[in-house]
Amino acid sequence: MNYLTLLPVWDKLDETQQNLLINTASVRKFHRGNLLHSGSAECTGLFLVLSGQLRAFTVSADGREITLYRLFERDICLFSASCIMNSIQFDVSITAEKDTEVLIIPSDVYKSIMETSAPLANFTNEVMASRFSDVMWLIDQVMWKSFDKRLADFLLNESYIEGTDTLKITHEEIGHHLGSPREVVTRMLKYFVNEGLVSLSRGTIQIIDKKKLSDVVNG
Amino acid sequence: MNYLTLLPVWDKLDETQQNLLINTASVRKFHRGNLLHSGSAECTGLFLVLSGQLRAFTVSADGREITLYRLFERDICLFSASCIMNSIQFDVSITAEKDTEVLIIPSDVYKSIMETSAPLANFTNEVMASRFSDVMWLIDQVMWKSFDKRLADFLLNESYIEGTDTLKITHEEIGHHLGSPREVVTRMLKYFVNEGLVSLSRGTIQIIDKKKLSDVVNG
Repeated sequence: MNYLTLLPVWDKLDETQQNLLINTASVRKFHRGNLLHSGSAECTGLFLVLSGQLRAFTVSADGREITLYRLFERDICLFSASCIMNSIQFDVSITAEKDTEVLIIPSDVYKSIMETSAPLANFTNEVMASRFSDVMWLIDQVMWKSFDKRLADFLLNESYIEGTDTLKITHEEIGHHLGSPREVVTRMLKYFVNEGLVSLSRGTIQIIDKKKLSDVVNG
Repeated sequence: MNYLTLLPVWDKLDETQQNLLINTASVRKFHRGNLLHSGSAECTGLFLVLSGQLRAFTVSADGREITLYRLFERDICLFSASCIMNSIQFDVSITAEKDTEVLIIPSDVYKSIMETSAPLANFTNEVMASRFSDVMWLIDQVMWKSFDKRLADFLLNESYIEGTDTLKITHEEIGHHLGSPREVVTRMLKYFVNEGLVSLSRGTIQIIDKKKLSDVVNG
């Protein structure tokens, strides 16, 4: 199968452009936990997620993390190819949250086609606008939402993504997602236990009352 | 003068596209304090700032504000034409911080040209990436920087923009820029007074020691 046809604008590229992509794109597998791209690394290329799950995050000067967004099957990871635009003046790191297979399009190839193809340039615009929307949501969260709401929303979202109420995740990992120290996560989780929302055991958080968790988010 | 030539890609548009822009773009003046665009408003059009200064900000459900970025002469305001992209799923409000003159390009005209013009689509990409960089800077600030550093940085930046050490701005306005309650701003400013960094009088903040303010930012 030609995975490149998963690009929504594939049919709008001419034959030369299509052949250039076919000849340069490659499939690569990453294991859960692998770092696909780090802020300071070279311009790896544009990723099209074929299977698995990626996490895009940003890191503070002293090593703290906050998740910007997740990427799932058929999503495009643009910032691993940040050199295609001069005005991208920030660093995003990408890790695999599950075993993940991606199609990689080399940055220089993508850039050269985008320069002459209005469809590809407009598609890129839409991808960036979509990530921008994710980050604006994040600003809304960190600015105006209290930590109990953010944590409850995170647990419900994890449960939705994983398709289970039994979450295998450490307090430190949650802290990295939410940009908060582990101790703050632990303290709030204990409060949730007392309120009958979750129960805790080593490396696992069991969601007990989804309705009440939703009430925390919307309360 | 044809202000449209200020568009960096003007020369890369064909004659039909140029004429369409010439026939539909218009110049409009706004007074200091005017709201040019609010999140819920219709898709006003793309603004090219001819003179003056704009402030882009986002508003919480209960009316709190935080500044996302400022726009100066020759900057492009894209999100006032957010309907040109489907994936822009967030609201940005724009006010004039000074008397401001803008060139307005109607959203539908801009969109129609962008659909076939790779240069205009790529230019739009660069503009969005530039705003994205501003917002990523903001995330870094609100996540990892203490309020004293953010306030000191804001005061130095205001002084730079205005070209004076005497800032005519209220504590409430600063709160709207930084996304903080007025009381928090007032408390920190009083601390700055005690440390000999600024002095306060009604509606005015006098910067006394720029070096020490910089030390707060970088300390």
